[in-house]
Amino acid sequence: MPPIISIVGKSDSGKTTLLEKLIAEIKNRGYRVGTIKHDTHGFDIDREGKDTWRHKKAGASAVAISSPTKVAIIKDIKQEETLDAIAAAYLQNMDIVFTEGYKRGNKPKVEVFRKEVHQELLCTEDDNLIAVASDQHFDLKVPYFDINDVKGLADLIQNKFLKTKPSPSVSLVLDGTYAPLKPFIQEMFINTLTGMVAALKGGKGARSIQISINVPE
Amino acid sequence: MPPIISIVGKSDSGKTTLLEKLIAEIKNRGYRVGTIKHDTHGFDIDREGKDTWRHKKAGASAVAISSPTKVAIIKDIKQEETLDAIAAAYLQNMDIVFTEGYKRGNKPKVEVFRKEVHQELLCTEDDNLIAVASDQHFDLKVPYFDINDVKGLADLIQNKFLKTKPSPSVSLVLDGTYAPLKPFIQEMFINTLTGMVAALKGGKGARSIQISINVPE
Repeated sequence: MPPIISIVGKSDSGKTTLLEKLIAEIKNRGYRVGTIKHDTHGFDIDREGKDTWRHKKAGASAVAISSPTKVAIIKDIKQEETLDAIAAAYLQNMDIVFTEGYKRGNKPKVEVFRKEVHQELLCTEDDNLIAVASDQHFDLKVPYFDINDVKGLADLIQNKFLKTKPSPSVSLVLDGTYAPLKPFIQEMFINTLTGMVAALKGGKGARSIQISINVPE
Repeated sequence: MPPIISIVGKSDSGKTTLLEKLIAEIKNRGYRVGTIKHDTHGFDIDREGKDTWRHKKAGASAVAISSPTKVAIIKDIKQEETLDAIAAAYLQNMDIVFTEGYKRGNKPKVEVFRKEVHQELLCTEDDNLIAVASDQHFDLKVPYFDINDVKGLADLIQNKFLKTKPSPSVSLVLDGTYAPLKPFIQEMFINTLTGMVAALKGGKGARSIQISINVPE
């Protein structure tokens, strides 16, 4: 599963603007970037009157739209999915995932701060804080970057999360919930499944293996 | 994987309208319905200026938005995904999936026809045709339904695809491509993996198992 970094900050601190620059910078360095936006109020991504919107309104629990270059899915869920579950189910072939928001999450965090909007940092007591990007200097235990120093921030993220040679990884989602696995168990799943798949026609050397099993009641 | 039925017809024949009624009817009978819309030209599901739109425009290869009741994903792909791959990756917990379009696909098809718009049926030579819904009577090898007889059409679909007791199923996607498995191999995957998962804490009795493995280059 790709590393997940949360871009947090109080409202109007400039999270989306910083994230836009960071996505472009990391992408330019050759990495595939995924993002997860937190929306506490529910959202309306589809446009009224479009066919997918009509399917959903008629009662479909999940609608997908597929074209030669893009695929989109809108799906009802029973309870909010964790970041790990979203990344495991939908973003597993990204090199890195940034979240906008999720300040209460447990992922490494970069806090964005602008002095004209707020008076105090949000995450100084948070052990997951790895950097602050701000238009005001802070003297902290974690690195500080000028809010426009996207290259500096990208260097930190690249060194910390993207420089290590990635090893085979496995993620398991049971009944919609991400199930963490101990390293030994991970290895057992990876070895068993890459072995089984390698024995199939066209399965040798597969880089991404996705298996779904449904056991009806 | 859920059964997939394609609702096809020439343009303006009333595919979306029929599908809306069919989704509502099948949902009312207690089934979870997913849909897949085919879009040959690319699509714009996100709204200009929204955060997810900004992430995508900045270069993200995949963006997700998550709320307590819904999750949405927009993802770049290298080549158009097959219906099987879309259903296996994103819709595996639906009871049935309808596609709007995919007239060249190999799924069971219902053709929609309105005489004021077109002169001839599209799929009379297609072995996958299972029914016609039209405002003009046709004498065909497959059942004919009045375009407003959604209950009749739903009965046919329910009897043909939803009445049989579902058995455990497995789907495998390798490097983004759906890999069909022979029954014996399916059974081997199901037994091996439900066994491995049952040995994990909280894994006993799981109804849905999703495993993703990434092997970096």
